[in-house]
Amino acid sequence: MECIFCKIIDREIPAVKVLDEELVLAFMDINPSNQGHMLVAPKKHAENIFDISEGDLAAVIKGVKRCANAVEEALKAEGITVLQLNGRASGQVVPHLHIHIIPRWENDGLSISSWEMKPGNVEEIKDIARKVKEHIS
Amino acid sequence: MECIFCKIIDREIPAVKVLDEELVLAFMDINPSNQGHMLVAPKKHAENIFDISEGDLAAVIKGVKRCANAVEEALKAEGITVLQLNGRASGQVVPHLHIHIIPRWENDGLSISSWEMKPGNVEEIKDIARKVKEHIS
Repeated sequence: MECIFCKIIDREIPAVKVLDEELVLAFMDINPSNQGHMLVAPKKHAENIFDISEGDLAAVIKGVKRCANAVEEALKAEGITVLQLNGRASGQVVPHLHIHIIPRWENDGLSISSWEMKPGNVEEIKDIARKVKEHIS
Repeated sequence: MECIFCKIIDREIPAVKVLDEELVLAFMDINPSNQGHMLVAPKKHAENIFDISEGDLAAVIKGVKRCANAVEEALKAEGITVLQLNGRASGQVVPHLHIHIIPRWENDGLSISSWEMKPGNVEEIKDIARKVKEHIS
């Protein structure tokens, strides 16, 4: 097995764990973007949001809520960015689903979420929505 | 009631809807960061991940999975960024919890998630984890 997060889950390689439950493991990111940056992952391998089961995903998001609460209290964070990347085009590095919890403070200088907001073309947006709805299962 | 997303949910103001369920509404972001940018929100008002109920949160993430799947298929996206902001320090603009689904393509030029990865101080990380664990409820 080559998945680094599966190896962490199987205790083959160490990690600084925050929450260790039946379905979910939360551990500190060793390349933190900000103080307290942690990751929440399902123990059962799933590459991304497309192939994780609904049950595991619900357990993961419940773990995210608990960890976000805890880190907000522990570090007196002023905000929390929750981020989950799917596919290399989105910047996903480890192909085992994980949700980033990134504590935030005013003027912390992180570029995450600081994208430009600009009005879209309404007709184009409606056309996309129509296409998406055809694919909702 | 002043919440703009509650007004969308109550049909007081229009939106381009993608998914309309008992607990969850998904609609297109009118200031899209990328083609197909949409938002998934609980119908019951909750400001952020701290004050949403676990049941509503599970319903929202299930809606995210379905919409991410649909938009990936509809637009042949190469990746999906899932983002949820809590608090002004994180860039949250509308104080009604919402999860962004942002379709991604290689070299689309979005800065979301393109933060620098740099190794952290392991002792500091362990100390933070210890503090966080004290606050896990």
